[in-house]
Formats: sequence, C-alpha cells, structure tokens
Amino acid sequence: MPCMYKVLSGKEPAAAILENARTEIAKLARKPSLVIVLVGNDPASETYVRKKLEKASAIGIDAKLERLGSDTKEKDLLKLVKKLNKDKAVDGFIVQSPIPKHMDYSKIVEAIDPKKDVDGWTSTNIGKMFLGVGGAFMPATPIGVIKMLEFYGADLRGKDVTVIGRGNVVGKPLAFMLLERDATVTICHSKTRNLADHTKRADIVIAAAGSPLLLKADMVKEGAYVIDVGTSKLGEKIVGDVDFENVIKKAHCSPVPGGIGPMTVAMLLSNCVEAAKKRS
Amino acid sequence: MPCMYKVLSGKEPAAAILENARTEIAKLARKPSLVIVLVGNDPASETYVRKKLEKASAIGIDAKLERLGSDTKEKDLLKLVKKLNKDKAVDGFIVQSPIPKHMDYSKIVEAIDPKKDVDGWTSTNIGKMFLGVGGAFMPATPIGVIKMLEFYGADLRGKDVTVIGRGNVVGKPLAFMLLERDATVTICHSKTRNLADHTKRADIVIAAAGSPLLLKADMVKEGAYVIDVGTSKLGEKIVGDVDFENVIKKAHCSPVPGGIGPMTVAMLLSNCVEAAKKRS
Repeated sequence: MPCMYKVLSGKEPAAAILENARTEIAKLARKPSLVIVLVGNDPASETYVRKKLEKASAIGIDAKLERLGSDTKEKDLLKLVKKLNKDKAVDGFIVQSPIPKHMDYSKIVEAIDPKKDVDGWTSTNIGKMFLGVGGAFMPATPIGVIKMLEFYGADLRGKDVTVIGRGNVVGKPLAFMLLERDATVTICHSKTRNLADHTKRADIVIAAAGSPLLLKADMVKEGAYVIDVGTSKLGEKIVGDVDFENVIKKAHCSPVPGGIGPMTVAMLLSNCVEAAKKRS
Repeated sequence: MPCMYKVLSGKEPAAAILENARTEIAKLARKPSLVIVLVGNDPASETYVRKKLEKASAIGIDAKLERLGSDTKEKDLLKLVKKLNKDKAVDGFIVQSPIPKHMDYSKIVEAIDPKKDVDGWTSTNIGKMFLGVGGAFMPATPIGVIKMLEFYGADLRGKDVTVIGRGNVVGKPLAFMLLERDATVTICHSKTRNLADHTKRADIVIAAAGSPLLLKADMVKEGAYVIDVGTSKLGEKIVGDVDFENVIKKAHCSPVPGGIGPMTVAMLLSNCVEAAKKRS
C-alpha cells in the first residue's frame, strides 16, 4: 500500500534555508565568522559540532572550532567567552551543550554578548523574543520546527497545536513562536495527567520530551502533522519521541534522524549570517 | 439557595502579602523607596497609581509620584528613566502604562535598570523568568493570579489550565509560571477556533482577553476555578471577562472589581521590598 502521508524530511527545507544563506553571504563584503566552543569530548556533541562546521564551510562561513579539555575551570571558559565577545573578527559563537557538570551552563551563556549569541540563549535575546520587540536571534531548534511546518504547507493559524515537553531549548520558545503565528497552543509534560487526550485532538503535535517512542499511532488524529524533536539511543538505534513506523500510516511525520536535525544546523547558520549582516 | 462555590476575593490574599511585606520592611535599615512615573492623565491610570501609592505608604514604603505632561517628548521620559536608574535613593520604579501614543513603551521599559525594574518588564528580567535562573522580578499581575490560586487552595500540579489571552502582560508570563508549577497549559486567543472546547475541559480557567463577559457559565466545568483578569467598561459598569453572576453558580470565581486588582498592587509592592533587600 502506498503511503498516503508525507515523510517530513528535514533535508529539503534545510537545503532551501542554506541556499538562501549562501545568497546572503555572497552580498557581504567579507565572510561571516562563527566559532564553536566544545568543552570535553561528548560523542554526540562531536557529531553535532562536525556537522555544523561542515555545513558552515560549505556555504561560505568562516567556521572555527575552539576545543577545551573536560577538566577546564569555569573561570577559564568564562575568560574565553569574554575574549570572543571582544574579538572583532568573530560575528557569532556558541558554547556547545552539554558542558561538563562542574560548570554552570546558564552562567556561561549569560556571559555571551547578545549580539554574538547566535544560539539565542542569553536572557536578553529570550526576553526580546518573548516581548516580540524584534532584533533577537531565535533559538535554532524551535524556529527550525516552525520553518519545517511552513515548508510542508502546514497552516498554523487557528490550529490546535500540542507540544510535548516544556524545556527551555524547545518547548517553551516554541510555544511563543506558535502563538505568534495564531495557533492555539497546549504544552504537556511529564506531569500531564492524560497525554493522549491532548495529542488526539491536535492538528499538529510536536514531541520534544526526550522519551523514546512515547507517541504512538493511537494517540494521533488521522491526517495530523507530527514533528519529532526527540533523539534517544535505544540499544544501537537512534530513535525519536515518535513511533514513526506506525504513526506515518496515519499522519504526516518527520523522521529521526533526518528530520529536525538538519533544520537546527541550518537555522544556526542562518542566525550567524544575520549577525554578520548586522555588524557589517 | 446558598452558593456552593467560593467567591475568590483578592482582598484577603492581598492583605496577607502586604502584611508579610510590612514585616520584611521592619527588618530593613531604611524604608524601601518606590517611584511611579505617570505620563499624561488617563483616568484609569490615575486610579491605579493612587491605589499603589496609598498601599505603599500604608506598609512603610517611601512612595513618590513623578508626573509628566501628556505632551512630554520621548527623549525627556528616557532622560527621567536614566536619572532614576542612577539615583541611589530609589530602589525601584515603574512607568505606568499606557503612555501617550507618540512614545514607544517597550523602548522606555528597556531603558530601565533591570535591578530597579519592579514591574518585571525589561527583557533581562523576562529572559531570567523564562530560563528559571532566578533573581528576576515577576510581573505583578500573573504572579498575583498564581498567589490567589495558592491562597484558595487550588492545586496546580497535573491540572489542566486554560488561559484566554496571549498578551505579554498576563497570558504569556502566566503560561511559564503555570508550567513551572506542573500544570498542563493551553493558551487560547482571538484566533482560537472553538474557545468553549478548551475552557470546558479545564480545571482552572484564567480569562485575560479584555473582552467583556466573554466566558459564560456553559463554557465552564462544574467546580472549576475561574480567575478573571479582564477589566472593561460596559456603560457605567466595570466588568471583567467573566459572566460572574452566572459562573459563580457553577464554579469558584474571582470578581471584578475586588479580585485580581488588589493582588497586582500587593505583588508590585512585594517586588519593591525585594529590590530594597537586594540593595541593602
């Protein structure tokens, strides 16, 4: 039986965003410059960082890795952040999370100059996003979700959208971004009483709980759009929060891997180009 | 027939908060100082400001009004904000909204030193609230809603809460505060398709749409808690977003006036005491 529902691959929309970024870069007097700070050697982070660097170079961003050992002291990481803040050759930089447990990530992020905070995590950028005053960098993953929905023609206006997960990285910022686009938004999480009640009535479900295969086909409305933002290891396999194999028989669904991952990278680089444009 | 449901008056919980603030003030070496900037002479603002000043003085806050004419230039209001930022005798200050239309309120607010921003509206304070990093002043009305629910014993954990309204002043910050207390949160607004679907299944409804008598008894679940944050003029009468007369026969409900209004004043003054404590 041919599948009636769309596999919401991240590759095509990410390629469109990167192509657009490349065009913007061509108009600039100089290459945008991005620095990624990687502390320690978390294997997943190594992969993410490599992908970010590769894609950056491919579209003409001057991307550089700053590596620090896992025993780096917090004050030394802060010193590096301050150096990058001052460095006129740097348009944007990020400190790849997670960082070793002896350091406070939010303290590190708060030290980043909001104008170079291309991950959009400083309180100044988040506050601006919240207030809708403009000029903020949007966190890459949630804005990637929005761009993916737009790419596949999922209209948001007046739609019921259920977000699973209330984290700072996806759930909370996504709630704003959806509200701004006139969706009615429900935010569920681990303390929600009956998750299926909320997912079954949704036109769009975004799963960002980090709970492998949490969302089953019987929890989804026929023809809904389902975006999977989870990534977990189940044995040797990388899986998302959605039971893709079964949900795809009933709803449009993004895969893991190959779904939201490429969108996150594309949006980060797009933010970096914005930072360079503002400084040029 | 005696009423089975509680009238959620704001007077008692506000009095408890003010009493607590008075105790805190007694421990300080000096009186906290609050300045309220009022631009123009909007009649509703005049009333609000008078109430804030009265209550402040009553509990031992040194409260002062700075009045500017409605033809004040934006740059002169900004100058006053900067003066208050520097004034060591001032612990906290607010610029009463609305301000005349020829000025940009968000620009004015952003000029306030976050340490003196007792209304909690600078992007720095909002960002901190969002990230849950602590040390932020919470906007007075939404935190007032939370305190009222707590005072009347409405448990939030795992409950379905529907918020009507997605404004920066109430709806959006309230959504975070509710999530932080483990509620499942739905945010509705003017573009929501069928509002009653979302209000009928809620254990708690918070109406902050500014739409007079929007929420009717048949839109509410029996025994729910309903908090009315709306204030509109209907002829000569001040009414809220809730059809109180009928809803109170079916659910616990806060009145307008005398509901969330006193809570807003109490929370603002409580923030001012916090500001003074941090500076002392």
